[in-house]
Amino acid sequence: MSRPRVVIAGAGFAGLTCARGLKGAPVDVLLVDRNNYHLFTPLLYQVASSVLDPGEIARPVRQLIRPLRNADFLLANVTGADFEKRLLLTDHGALSYDYLVLATGSQSDYFGNASLARHAFGLKNLDEGLAVRNRILMRFEESRWTEDRERRRSLLTFAVVGGGPTGVEMAGALSELINLVLRKDYRDLDLDLVRVVLLEAAGSLLGTFAPPLRDAARMSLEKKGVEVLLKARVEDVTSGSIRLSDGHEILASTVIWTAGVRASDVGATLSLQLGKQARIQVLPTLQVPEHPDVFVIGDIAGAVDRDAPLPMLIPVAMQEGRKVAATIKDLLSGYGATNFWFKDPGIMATIGRNSAVAELGPVRLTGFLGWLMWLFVHLINVISFRSRIVVLVNWAWDYLFYDRPIRLILRAAEEPPD
Amino acid sequence: MSRPRVVIAGAGFAGLTCARGLKGAPVDVLLVDRNNYHLFTPLLYQVASSVLDPGEIARPVRQLIRPLRNADFLLANVTGADFEKRLLLTDHGALSYDYLVLATGSQSDYFGNASLARHAFGLKNLDEGLAVRNRILMRFEESRWTEDRERRRSLLTFAVVGGGPTGVEMAGALSELINLVLRKDYRDLDLDLVRVVLLEAAGSLLGTFAPPLRDAARMSLEKKGVEVLLKARVEDVTSGSIRLSDGHEILASTVIWTAGVRASDVGATLSLQLGKQARIQVLPTLQVPEHPDVFVIGDIAGAVDRDAPLPMLIPVAMQEGRKVAATIKDLLSGYGATNFWFKDPGIMATIGRNSAVAELGPVRLTGFLGWLMWLFVHLINVISFRSRIVVLVNWAWDYLFYDRPIRLILRAAEEPPD
Repeated sequence: MSRPRVVIAGAGFAGLTCARGLKGAPVDVLLVDRNNYHLFTPLLYQVASSVLDPGEIARPVRQLIRPLRNADFLLANVTGADFEKRLLLTDHGALSYDYLVLATGSQSDYFGNASLARHAFGLKNLDEGLAVRNRILMRFEESRWTEDRERRRSLLTFAVVGGGPTGVEMAGALSELINLVLRKDYRDLDLDLVRVVLLEAAGSLLGTFAPPLRDAARMSLEKKGVEVLLKARVEDVTSGSIRLSDGHEILASTVIWTAGVRASDVGATLSLQLGKQARIQVLPTLQVPEHPDVFVIGDIAGAVDRDAPLPMLIPVAMQEGRKVAATIKDLLSGYGATNFWFKDPGIMATIGRNSAVAELGPVRLTGFLGWLMWLFVHLINVISFRSRIVVLVNWAWDYLFYDRPIRLILRAAEEPPD
Repeated sequence: MSRPRVVIAGAGFAGLTCARGLKGAPVDVLLVDRNNYHLFTPLLYQVASSVLDPGEIARPVRQLIRPLRNADFLLANVTGADFEKRLLLTDHGALSYDYLVLATGSQSDYFGNASLARHAFGLKNLDEGLAVRNRILMRFEESRWTEDRERRRSLLTFAVVGGGPTGVEMAGALSELINLVLRKDYRDLDLDLVRVVLLEAAGSLLGTFAPPLRDAARMSLEKKGVEVLLKARVEDVTSGSIRLSDGHEILASTVIWTAGVRASDVGATLSLQLGKQARIQVLPTLQVPEHPDVFVIGDIAGAVDRDAPLPMLIPVAMQEGRKVAATIKDLLSGYGATNFWFKDPGIMATIGRNSAVAELGPVRLTGFLGWLMWLFVHLINVISFRSRIVVLVNWAWDYLFYDRPIRLILRAAEEPPD
């Protein structure tokens, strides 16, 4: 009666895909996550920029695993492991496993810069997305009733650090929020004071894309009013300003950090061997050396492809999840573990309404065509049919009426008063 | 060039209606609220029971006052007033006024019971609605991994205190959330352990409705699995139980309080004369005695109709707001203030899917017909066309698929790290 138990830590794209891959297999699956929802991270910047509500990009894990029948869920934080006894330790008790899959994802990395850690907003989870939304809206409210012009300029300057897809998408959406929506809310506002600055340490945006697409993204952002500063390395942040490594100072009282990401702390917590970006070193089979019953997938896994580490992207996470599910089934059937190979489906990033860049194998799209492709891919991938309708209504509303009705400053929802 | 300034404290139904009534009048209107949104309170219990997201029942004040042209908004808390100098004091500075309209609404009243104030959830604002949602979902997660049966019973017992419309609607929606949705999430759950208890101190539910409707509501709730306890007065609450005044004890670790409401603290803060429920005493013209330039409207106003205080209801708030806008225009034109008369449009309350009670003058509706009427009235009154579509999608989803996809436990959104 007792079937092998697979414990999967993390209900993101990697963990959830792995659980789904084990549907119908003769195992009991236990998904563990510190949130009760799975998050569609590619649209998180739209929560931050008041386009979407949390309910539209997140879905309860229990609902997603309902069709699996052999899966259950535990809301808990991973606190350690005993690999000899095959136990995963959590703040809700020890979980025994036959196979352990680590898929706890990644977090913002401030590279030890305390001023960044203190003053900058990350954009990695739903709480951070809501905090950024609150901050942007609060700054506009404050500036409306601030007499001092210098102070107003600082309140109304928003710096996005990092020219990867998240930074580019956030800067574009923020510029549109301000220019298309908030300017109607603040009729007396001097728009000359408002700045959206995108800071990138390298010499171009979207370094992982082909050069023509990088330039297209930059031009598109600048047309939308975003100031793009290249070769700009942030050295210090205060509550009202940013200092770059070349001594240049920018008066900005909101800093959104998308320039550094590292693996979740679970790898360190479990004393596993870490590589670049604190990712757990794995064999080509995605197993941990010396612990063949422990697998690592998604952003936290340091899997390599021809010596280069695989990027922290959803397709990697999903393919790794699917592979490990297949491997576990193979092991149960007496076969051995085989190596993982990543198939690259392409990359894309949007730059607000009517513009995106997409690179799908040999196909490169920019501008409106790229945007249509982006829209299509994201709409069919949004997690449920209901979300799809609601997201479509919100996008259409935004697109047709230049309006974002969700710009609500929500205070901290109190924890239950125990 | 300097026009008379009307300061309206509170952007609920009373304050917003008053601001709208002053559209085109030769005054500058300043709306002050501690939140940047107007809340459609009749559907707050649907946020608490995972049917709707905040963005569907709240709308930015700035968006709502955009068409008014002569109105602006300040995000601030009222801290005092100097009636001689005509100043309203806030935590964002002193605001001079020619006319002051107080419309800061109401809050939960625990009648000085410290155990209630500490352990019970109010259901008066968006933060409380989200906190209740979090609590309900957390209790189910906890109970799933709790071995002790008594402890499980306590975790899964939800007490709603107060048999008015809010309590009835909350109990009905909560019972449906559990029986139609969560039971599918928790396949191993012993549903015999789950209890939704509605406690009312009086001898019947919905005391403001006609007796046949009260009985219909009770039967409808009981059919949905809600235990209705009448003549049950709560004396003490701990983190795991409720003690009634007759000594009876109920093991329940979630208590939602809808049984007491009093006016917001602004009346006391301004040292105005207070009546029942701490409501500010006003003349029949809604002016404060001795301060003819200060008006009070909505829940915070102690207006009377044939010696009975007017109920804290949206129609009262809106009619008072409209009246005061008209009176201010009259005063500016050299006319005097006239008395306010309330026209009662009727009352209604819903008891989950397919059932509601409505009393509209001589017309009394129950069951499915009452529900259709409730649906119609609320859908046309939801604040924007976009919300109407999104709310309709969510309601249809809930109705057709017995599913509430928004059951997300959102942690406290951090305040911006200043």
